[in-house]
Amino acid sequence: MKPRNKISDAVVRRLPIYRRYLEDLMHDDIERISSNELSSLIGFTASQIRQDLNNFGGFGQQGYGYNIRDLYKEINMIMGLNKEYRMVITGVGNLGQAIANHTKYYKNGFPIVGMFDINPKIIGLRINDIEVQDREMLPEFLMKNDIDIGIITTDRNAAQGIANQYVEGNVRGIWNFAPCDLKVPRHISVENVHVTDTLNSLAYHMTHSDVFEEE
Amino acid sequence: MKPRNKISDAVVRRLPIYRRYLEDLMHDDIERISSNELSSLIGFTASQIRQDLNNFGGFGQQGYGYNIRDLYKEINMIMGLNKEYRMVITGVGNLGQAIANHTKYYKNGFPIVGMFDINPKIIGLRINDIEVQDREMLPEFLMKNDIDIGIITTDRNAAQGIANQYVEGNVRGIWNFAPCDLKVPRHISVENVHVTDTLNSLAYHMTHSDVFEEE
Repeated sequence: MKPRNKISDAVVRRLPIYRRYLEDLMHDDIERISSNELSSLIGFTASQIRQDLNNFGGFGQQGYGYNIRDLYKEINMIMGLNKEYRMVITGVGNLGQAIANHTKYYKNGFPIVGMFDINPKIIGLRINDIEVQDREMLPEFLMKNDIDIGIITTDRNAAQGIANQYVEGNVRGIWNFAPCDLKVPRHISVENVHVTDTLNSLAYHMTHSDVFEEE
Repeated sequence: MKPRNKISDAVVRRLPIYRRYLEDLMHDDIERISSNELSSLIGFTASQIRQDLNNFGGFGQQGYGYNIRDLYKEINMIMGLNKEYRMVITGVGNLGQAIANHTKYYKNGFPIVGMFDINPKIIGLRINDIEVQDREMLPEFLMKNDIDIGIITTDRNAAQGIANQYVEGNVRGIWNFAPCDLKVPRHISVENVHVTDTLNSLAYHMTHSDVFEEE
């Protein structure tokens, strides 16, 4: 793949949103859409949308709008979603199971191939045809299998230790749901989902919509 | 409460992070910390930290550092975490249950007082002493109880309808885990947790750390 110009972080954060709307439109068998129509769907301004989508080589034609399928493919390629990422989960409580089910049914390209826990009641369970193994087996499993992404859905105390095992086991990315920041080498990508932070942030906005209410 | 100067969104996003580290420090019975020590813990620069924390009225004293407990209290007050938020969950699958358990054990001030689902196998279950009710009961429940936050952990098709019921039932905030954007009146605060978007974003960063690798 030819290296591209680096896309700004702000655009990168909007890509999944575009992608989600384009998926809906394809689902409804719509072939083309103008930046104005996209704007009224998504809520970004039409000029913002044109500017963002120009990063991907100008699929919009004046008067014709964007070819939805082409744009979707291009965004997928840029986002790295044209490849497969083999994943393991460590921590198979409710959250781990929710993620296993969700990715199984809603995400192509992200197969979960191993699940690990320390709880004897959970070890041995089969979830979507994967047997949950003892967490002690994780390093050996990583040595024997090519794993791209390690998921952490344990409590925060266990999280860094598991991250270290993932790094030693040559994963390239970590999807971290534990409420802590991980220390990993720079070549490892980490995406944190700090669920509790988002609840705190909701409380903040509710509090300040009282204090600063304009009407 | 005296209205304060509005804090920038960037600072607001960092508040939960400061709060999390301060909690750890209190847990370890540490009383004071300097911006330099905070910097080496969190990874923000010391000058960034001083600038951020100046928003809260200068708890830092030259040579003494910050009083951790005071700073934590102040951040809590600004974040609206000195109040109680009564919550209901609609959608009691794995994710809904994970959130119910998590908030029960890890979050003071956010009690879940009602749970709703459409699945007859789930209706009637007791989760943390709350009986899951038929989703049809939601509007009546909201009429009879003061609810601050409605949580949506259904699939995307059901999400907007539930958001509408929450709005009619006078919730003030919505914590939305369904992969869609909700249309709600402006006085309602919405916090989206688009879990799948974060996985896509991880794939993006993994892809581009290959392409742009510096070493």
